[in-house]
Amino acid sequence: MRAVVLGDTLSLQTDRPQPTPARDEVLVRVSCAGICETDLQLVKGYMGFRGVLGHEFVGVAESGPLAGRRVVGEINCACGSCAMCRRGLPSHCPARTVLGILNHDGAFADVIAVPQRNLHPVPDTMPDDVAVFTEPVAAALQIPAQMPIGREDRIVVLGDGRLGNLCAQVLAGLSPHVLVVGKHPEKLALLASMGIAAVPLADLALERTADIVVDATGSESGLPAAMTLVRPRGTIVLKTTVAGTQTLAWAPFVIDEVTLVGSRCGPFDTALAALQTGRVDVSAMISRRFGLSQGVEALDYARTQPVLKVLLDVM
Amino acid sequence: MRAVVLGDTLSLQTDRPQPTPARDEVLVRVSCAGICETDLQLVKGYMGFRGVLGHEFVGVAESGPLAGRRVVGEINCACGSCAMCRRGLPSHCPARTVLGILNHDGAFADVIAVPQRNLHPVPDTMPDDVAVFTEPVAAALQIPAQMPIGREDRIVVLGDGRLGNLCAQVLAGLSPHVLVVGKHPEKLALLASMGIAAVPLADLALERTADIVVDATGSESGLPAAMTLVRPRGTIVLKTTVAGTQTLAWAPFVIDEVTLVGSRCGPFDTALAALQTGRVDVSAMISRRFGLSQGVEALDYARTQPVLKVLLDVM
Repeated sequence: MRAVVLGDTLSLQTDRPQPTPARDEVLVRVSCAGICETDLQLVKGYMGFRGVLGHEFVGVAESGPLAGRRVVGEINCACGSCAMCRRGLPSHCPARTVLGILNHDGAFADVIAVPQRNLHPVPDTMPDDVAVFTEPVAAALQIPAQMPIGREDRIVVLGDGRLGNLCAQVLAGLSPHVLVVGKHPEKLALLASMGIAAVPLADLALERTADIVVDATGSESGLPAAMTLVRPRGTIVLKTTVAGTQTLAWAPFVIDEVTLVGSRCGPFDTALAALQTGRVDVSAMISRRFGLSQGVEALDYARTQPVLKVLLDVM
Repeated sequence: MRAVVLGDTLSLQTDRPQPTPARDEVLVRVSCAGICETDLQLVKGYMGFRGVLGHEFVGVAESGPLAGRRVVGEINCACGSCAMCRRGLPSHCPARTVLGILNHDGAFADVIAVPQRNLHPVPDTMPDDVAVFTEPVAAALQIPAQMPIGREDRIVVLGDGRLGNLCAQVLAGLSPHVLVVGKHPEKLALLASMGIAAVPLADLALERTADIVVDATGSESGLPAAMTLVRPRGTIVLKTTVAGTQTLAWAPFVIDEVTLVGSRCGPFDTALAALQTGRVDVSAMISRRFGLSQGVEALDYARTQPVLKVLLDVM
């Protein structure tokens, strides 16, 4: 099969063997996959991943109870028996693999192996182009899953990219006081067209008045910027993962009693519902599409151009 | 009057003028004061403070509604009218001064000026030696004031010093699963004599199983250590303030969805009640006492010796 494989370099393989599903896994024939900031970080060396990239996908299950149906799949493949799994936190299973991120081949391929229990059927009326956003929408919905968001909360989202846009859409449904801060005029304009306040970073008044600041910058400049915007006793939601170590003064967390909440994967069922009802609208977020055979070029394009979502058409 | 003053160096002044109370302040004749880790940090340059050190004290009010009564005093002197004050968060007033820490002379002196509203009367039956611990006990009680602590929570307190001991005592009243990690055999033995599990750092099994880790080390090694002990979705309470910037990998906060809660000053009323009922026992924590005139030597002793609390007898 075809697959976009990260080794010492990134390459398209056309004769890669299909994955052999583990006992709890089924094969899914991928229809469409999305490129995520994490994919770009992995290419730069984050996590030391080697294998088939890709963790945002929609496809058709080839076996199991959902055989023949369109499915999306949660990305954490858990052991099911450890303390974290028994606690209902499979996404934190210490023995987990993660599709296209950690010890498990991903979705930039004709076929991916996915644990049966990770699969969610896609509503018949939902196009592949929408369903492929389930994973990042779930990540955005993890914020209200982790903490209550009130209608009085003043929220700043740092980052006008893929994840920042989705976080802003989710949070704007919970509070009218959402402001996105970004660097890309066309991405800020898209948010404004959705009715979400959005300003260039350069125009931002640096006041420490935000109740909640979401760092979706994907850059190590995000957290220090969040510290200049969050009010005392406020909360920073950290969505950004970057490789290596970073430098920051920790004392302000104590002096201002700031809370930092790390936030990662979220609920697929809620994400599918948000996409189905239009609570989250991804129709204007697709910047460009490539065929799977142009996967290497697609990742390079996503890395170098000011895009929102780049999709790979696989089937 | 006498005062321990931090300028370019630390010195005892014997002819310093008494402070002139602002309109909302009263003078308090200090009976006894305690040396805190923050005082030692200030001497090392933290906050750039210049003036009379000291923020843990008990004394006798010289005027106002509590004139003639023994009092303790909250350390944040707030404006009373800003957004934070109106929100009920005077300890986060951006215009605040802080006794002995920020733009306000402190308590290592014969007399200190304190806002009337900051004062709390000390119960008649409570000795000065106990009342002088009100401020650090309040800081420990800020932890359960900020977050629910359950009886099932497995809690690790990093640091067997003054604040670590008090945090451990407060938390041990809420969960039977409290473990203190420290470096000082005699301080660990004191905790053990109080019925609190305590182990040397060197003997600690590095398992990421703690629901809550409190960093009361006073050292920049505390937070990285906490990251190796907290479970995914667990909480780190950061009590340590150190000057400058620190280096850490931030991605694990996101990957493991760890929450970091900065925690500073706490409720004096609850602290006085905890000291009065014996919920917190400070009787074994006084390592040595000095007269105010030996204040410089006292700070040097607290900095260089493995002590718990060093007191200054003022009156």
